[in-house]
Amino acid sequence: MADSPNCDLKSLSPLQLFERVTEQGEKVRALKAGKAPKDEIDAAVRTLLSLKLSYKTTTGQDYQAGLPPKDLVLINNGTAKEEDEDLVDPWNVQTSNAKGVDYDKLIVRFGSSKIDTDLINRIERAIGQKPHHFLRRGIFFSHRDMDQVLDAYENKKPFYLYTGRGPSSQAMHVGHLIPFMFTKWLQEVFDVPLVIQLTDDEKYLWKDMTVEKAYEYARENAKDIIACGFNINKTFIFSDLDYLGTSAGFYKNIVKIQKHVTFNQVKGIFGFTDSDCIGKISFPAIQAAPSFSSSFPQIFNGKENIQCLIPCAIDQDPYFRMTRDVAPRIGHPKPALLHSVFFPALQGAQTKMSASDPNSSIFLTDTPKQIKTKINKHAFSGGRDTIEEHRKYGGNCDVDVSFMYLTFFLEDDDRLEQLKQAYTSGELLTGELKKVLIETMQPLVAAHQERRKQVTDEIVKQFMTPRKLAFEF
Amino acid sequence: MADSPNCDLKSLSPLQLFERVTEQGEKVRALKAGKAPKDEIDAAVRTLLSLKLSYKTTTGQDYQAGLPPKDLVLINNGTAKEEDEDLVDPWNVQTSNAKGVDYDKLIVRFGSSKIDTDLINRIERAIGQKPHHFLRRGIFFSHRDMDQVLDAYENKKPFYLYTGRGPSSQAMHVGHLIPFMFTKWLQEVFDVPLVIQLTDDEKYLWKDMTVEKAYEYARENAKDIIACGFNINKTFIFSDLDYLGTSAGFYKNIVKIQKHVTFNQVKGIFGFTDSDCIGKISFPAIQAAPSFSSSFPQIFNGKENIQCLIPCAIDQDPYFRMTRDVAPRIGHPKPALLHSVFFPALQGAQTKMSASDPNSSIFLTDTPKQIKTKINKHAFSGGRDTIEEHRKYGGNCDVDVSFMYLTFFLEDDDRLEQLKQAYTSGELLTGELKKVLIETMQPLVAAHQERRKQVTDEIVKQFMTPRKLAFEF
Repeated sequence: MADSPNCDLKSLSPLQLFERVTEQGEKVRALKAGKAPKDEIDAAVRTLLSLKLSYKTTTGQDYQAGLPPKDLVLINNGTAKEEDEDLVDPWNVQTSNAKGVDYDKLIVRFGSSKIDTDLINRIERAIGQKPHHFLRRGIFFSHRDMDQVLDAYENKKPFYLYTGRGPSSQAMHVGHLIPFMFTKWLQEVFDVPLVIQLTDDEKYLWKDMTVEKAYEYARENAKDIIACGFNINKTFIFSDLDYLGTSAGFYKNIVKIQKHVTFNQVKGIFGFTDSDCIGKISFPAIQAAPSFSSSFPQIFNGKENIQCLIPCAIDQDPYFRMTRDVAPRIGHPKPALLHSVFFPALQGAQTKMSASDPNSSIFLTDTPKQIKTKINKHAFSGGRDTIEEHRKYGGNCDVDVSFMYLTFFLEDDDRLEQLKQAYTSGELLTGELKKVLIETMQPLVAAHQERRKQVTDEIVKQFMTPRKLAFEF
Repeated sequence: MADSPNCDLKSLSPLQLFERVTEQGEKVRALKAGKAPKDEIDAAVRTLLSLKLSYKTTTGQDYQAGLPPKDLVLINNGTAKEEDEDLVDPWNVQTSNAKGVDYDKLIVRFGSSKIDTDLINRIERAIGQKPHHFLRRGIFFSHRDMDQVLDAYENKKPFYLYTGRGPSSQAMHVGHLIPFMFTKWLQEVFDVPLVIQLTDDEKYLWKDMTVEKAYEYARENAKDIIACGFNINKTFIFSDLDYLGTSAGFYKNIVKIQKHVTFNQVKGIFGFTDSDCIGKISFPAIQAAPSFSSSFPQIFNGKENIQCLIPCAIDQDPYFRMTRDVAPRIGHPKPALLHSVFFPALQGAQTKMSASDPNSSIFLTDTPKQIKTKINKHAFSGGRDTIEEHRKYGGNCDVDVSFMYLTFFLEDDDRLEQLKQAYTSGELLTGELKKVLIETMQPLVAAHQERRKQVTDEIVKQFMTPRKLAFEF
C-alpha cells in the first residue's frame, strides 16, 4: 500500500483520510513528546494541516478526533447508536417498534436512496412491464446507483446480478425466499447473468460448526434456492469453501480488497474487537469480491469492468458500503444495490426471524397442517380483543403479521387492498384474515416442495460448476 | 468457535486461557460498574477465579493483567524487547554486535532447542552418512521436535519437507540459497516429498507492488530455486496467488487456522496494529497452512496426519510458533522445525541483507568480475589496519565477513580450519582470504547460472502444477 503522505490525497476515501489525519496527529504528538527538532515538528504540523484541509474538502465536515466521517459511522457500534434508534447489522436486527424498523431513518443513516415512484416508473419503462410487487409495495425500498444500472441497460451495456446466503442450517423459512424471488424476477426481466454466493466459510467462522457441516448446509440450501426457478444456463451458485479453491480470479480480488481495508475500518463498520479471530476480521473481503466481475473469469471472459447489481436485505449493506469504498481504488466499478426490508417473525416485527426457532416462521419443510397451526397459534394479530370491539374499531394492518405476510406473498393488488379495507374497518375478523394467509401459504410452500424434490444432486452439481453461462462477454 | 466458559479448558492454549481470564476480568468489572445483581457478580467472579486457576495450572505462572504467557511474548514488539536484545522477526533483524545475533539467547527467548552434538550424531546414524556442513558448523543451530521426526523416520513413518520464499524482487542473492541448499540435502538423504511456498500474496500486501508483478517475481524466483537441483518428481513449488485458486484443501486449512487465531494473538506475535490492512492480519494463516498435509490432497491422498518438517531461517519462527499453537486444536500434528542463522551482509553481520542493495551481497546474476570487485571492496574485514600489525596480532574470524561466507560455502572442513588458523595467527592476510572467497564464489555462482539457463518455462510449469509426487500415501 502506498502509505506515503505524498500520494494523491484525492484518491482516498473519507475514512482513509480520517485515518491519515488521526495518524499524523499521533505523529505530531509523538514528535513533541520526544522533543524532536523544531523544523521536524513544524513539517509534521504542516502535513497535518494540509491533511485536515483535504478531509474538509472531501467530506464537507471539520475533522473531529474519534469521530469518523458520517457515511461510515456504524450501526452495531453501541456507542454510535442513539437511544431510540434501531440496531441493524449483518448479525443483529432490533427495534422496539411493533411496526418494525424505521426504514426512512435507516436510509438517512446508511446514506442510501429511497426507491421512489420516479425510479419505479423508470424501471417499468425500461423493462416494458409492470414492476414486481416487492417494488410496488416498498418491500425493496432503498437503493444505491440503480439509476446507473438503468443507464447502462438502456445503452445496451451489460451488467450482472449478485446475491447470496449464509447457510447456517438446513432449515430455510419463507422469509429467506424474498431476495431470491426478487432476484429471479430481475434475472428474467433484464436477462442477465446471476451469481449466488453461499458463505459457508462465514458460517464456519461464526458458528460452532465444522467445515464439512457448513459445506453440507450450503449444498442443501442450494436446492431450495434452485427450486425458486433460476435458469441453469444463466446462474452460477457457489460455496466459498469450494469456489475459492477452483477460481483463478476470486482469491486475487479478495487479496486486493484485503490490502485496501484496515482493521480500523472493519472495526468501525462491523464492530469487530481484538478478541475476534482473524478469519472474521478478513471475511468481509470474501463477501465483497463477487461484486467484481473478474472474480468470475469463466463467466465474464476475464473482463474487469462489468457493472454488478446486488439485491439483498438492508442488513447486508455494511459489506457493500465497504466494497463501494474500495472499488475505485482497485480499478473496479462500484456495485449498485437494491435493499429489502426485513421479513417479520410470526410473533411480530420487532425482530428478524431466527432459523433456529421453528415457531418463528413458516419453514419450507412445513406440512399444510403445520402451516395452519403456526399461523393460527403464533401469528401476531392487529385485531381487537373481542369480536365486538373488532367490529366497532377495526384491526391494525400496520402491526398485524398475517397482513404483513400477505403483502409479501399475495400477488393480487386488488385482493390485498380489499383485505386491508375490510380488516381495518372491522368487517374482516382476525381468524378470517389468518385463513386467507393459510390458503395463500399452503399451496406456495407445497409447490416449492414439489419443485425442490425435482432438484437432484446432479442438478446442484451443474449449478455449482464454474462454467461459461449463456452470455457473450 | 466454542466460546462458552464451560468448554473444556484443558484444550486451550496458554494464550487462549490468558485471553479468557482477561475477558472474564472485563466482564466482572462491567457487571460491577453496571451495578448488576449480587448473585450475577458472584457467579462471574467464581468463573474468573476458576479461569485463573486453570491458567496457573497450565502455565506454571500467576495470571498478570497485560502480560501474556512467556512462550508467546513477542520479539518485534518493542516494549517486550530488553535494551541489549537483538530484534528478530519476519521483517526485521537487528543487532548491535559485529559477530551478529546472539543465537544462544535467541533459543532461550524463542523457547526452541539447540541442535547439539547428540542430535547431529543421531541424524548421522539415521541417514548413514556425514551430516551436511550447515549442521556440523552450527549454521542450522536450533530446532523444534526434530527428535520426533527421527523417531518417525526410524519407524518407517512418512514425513515431508516444507520451506518457502517471499518473492520481493527478481534479484536473489547467495544468502537466499542457504535454506534451499539445505532442504535439497534433506530431501536427498531422507527421500521425502517437498513443498515450496512462494508468498507472492504476502509481497503484494506488504510492498508497493501489483498482484501481477508479485506473481511474475514468484515464477522468476522459482527458476533460481529449481536451479538448486530439486527432484521434479518429488517437489511441488507453488505461488499462493495461483495455488489458492486450484486447491480443494488449502483454503479449508487456512480458514480453520483463521478461526483459531485472534487479532490479539497476531498483534502479540507479529506486532500488527489497528492501522494494518486486514490482508496482513490474516496472512499468517496462509504461511501456516502448508504445515498440514491436507493442504496438498493431490500429494498426500487427502491424509491429514503426515508430519511436516520446516527448514527455515530463525526469523520465520513466529509464524510456526503460531502454527504449533493451533495445530492440536484443529486435529493436525505440530510441524517440526530446523532453524538457520542469518546470512550476513558483505558490510558486516549487524544486519540481514537487503535484496534492494546490490552491494549488500553477492547476487545470483553477478559476473565473476562483479563478484571479485564486491568482495574486495565491500566485504568487512576482521584483519588489522597494517600488514605489520596483522602479522603480529592476527585477524579476527568472528567478525570477518569473508571468513563467515566461507563457512557457508567452502565444504572442505580441513581447508576451512587451515584458513582459520592461518588468518588468526596473522600468517594469512585479508587480501589472501578474500582471494580464497572469490575463487570459491565465482565457480559456485557460474554453475548456478548455468543450471538456471536450463530451467525452461515448461520446467517451471511442471514444478508448479499440482500433481501426485513419486510417493504413495
